[in-house]
Amino acid sequence: MAITAVVFDAYGTLYDVQSVAAVTEQAFPGYGEIITQIWRIKQLEYTWLRSLMRRYQDFSIVTRDSLGYTLRVLGLAHDSGVFERIMDKYLRLDLYPDAMTTLAAMRDRKLAILSNGSTAMLDALVRNSGLDRVLDATISVDSQQVFKPSPEAYGLIETRLGLAPAEVLFVTSNPWDACGAKAFGLNVAWIERVTPDAMALACVKSDIVPPLTMFKAIRTQMDELGLEPDYRIRALSELPGLVAAHQT
Amino acid sequence: MAITAVVFDAYGTLYDVQSVAAVTEQAFPGYGEIITQIWRIKQLEYTWLRSLMRRYQDFSIVTRDSLGYTLRVLGLAHDSGVFERIMDKYLRLDLYPDAMTTLAAMRDRKLAILSNGSTAMLDALVRNSGLDRVLDATISVDSQQVFKPSPEAYGLIETRLGLAPAEVLFVTSNPWDACGAKAFGLNVAWIERVTPDAMALACVKSDIVPPLTMFKAIRTQMDELGLEPDYRIRALSELPGLVAAHQT
Repeated sequence: MAITAVVFDAYGTLYDVQSVAAVTEQAFPGYGEIITQIWRIKQLEYTWLRSLMRRYQDFSIVTRDSLGYTLRVLGLAHDSGVFERIMDKYLRLDLYPDAMTTLAAMRDRKLAILSNGSTAMLDALVRNSGLDRVLDATISVDSQQVFKPSPEAYGLIETRLGLAPAEVLFVTSNPWDACGAKAFGLNVAWIERVTPDAMALACVKSDIVPPLTMFKAIRTQMDELGLEPDYRIRALSELPGLVAAHQT
Repeated sequence: MAITAVVFDAYGTLYDVQSVAAVTEQAFPGYGEIITQIWRIKQLEYTWLRSLMRRYQDFSIVTRDSLGYTLRVLGLAHDSGVFERIMDKYLRLDLYPDAMTTLAAMRDRKLAILSNGSTAMLDALVRNSGLDRVLDATISVDSQQVFKPSPEAYGLIETRLGLAPAEVLFVTSNPWDACGAKAFGLNVAWIERVTPDAMALACVKSDIVPPLTMFKAIRTQMDELGLEPDYRIRALSELPGLVAAHQT
């Protein structure tokens, strides 16, 4: 069956969440990168924990709470102006350099985002980055009151686009998201943005492993969840060729 | 209402999961501590992700998979003998020094474990450490095929012990577990084993934050999940006095 629609994860896939580091570094010199790493890991944990506890709050709340946690753990005093300036960057994240040209090259398919982000956050992000000109739909998990990798989240693709999972290619750089989409039954392309070899080489001894390397490693390596993506790619720009060649 | 039963989390609460470091350090000199930190973070992530994906596998599988992931990310070659020797330590974890005396001092209450561990893992651990002599019950989430912090996991306390949540004090050092138990309606004592001040002081600049400090910090600081434990304590030994004084 041919691919009728390509559906993208947003944060970390089309948008570089690490681009927040420019703002956090300005606010807290020397801490820019470590803030983004801890913030991201806790943001993800809170989506999973709130989903499991049945205490859903939308992604803007989870993102604020995890930033608050990060600044507290690092012992960084701040006023509300600094906090809001960092939060605002989440509505203006940088696109990966090949995102716009990749989407433009696949205009013969339906193109959409399926994201944990709240509707308001996603609408602002898509508009600010100009992706509203190439996307057919931006789908938030918010209506299901549960985050990925819950099946109810991936089920929104069928509900909203009217397409069976077998017709859809889901694209994400997040290993757990690739596994969740695969478990649900979608075709999955996982973007592996960091080379495993470079990672292993960086880890010579535990007392000198750079913390940023380790934090990045455990977010970018494929997880051991008994599931494998259909495709492993290194960049968004590989997608148009992959979609054209796909046969199931 | 008085406390009729005290129910303990196992891993990290009664048993020191970091005591695996002696074995991992022997197997991989220089990597002992970093292995235990990454292993633990991935072990937890996999319990949450598998629960959300409805792809439950018991805790022995999750623990093996997360160890495999850790050694792969760190680029550490190994044979099955080394792997099994590390896994075996999970059945012989060290008790925290005050665990046995604390439990012995509360023999006038029902005492139990509620853990993510599989029945076979928990039975071996409890027997090897001698806690079988003081515990009235060891409850595994396995019968529910879902991990904490799902409500179905905490619900096992009522099912197995025949006690209402208001009669139970749940004790854990894991912040997310304290929040999950509180969301369910149990009385909760959270053990804060690391001082926040020491943590903040360790973080002078992001390029010199020791990775182990950061990994420990994000496992030991209270999370921002909109929930607060009823009690914050520093050691198990505070429990007998707390239980005797408790009034709701």
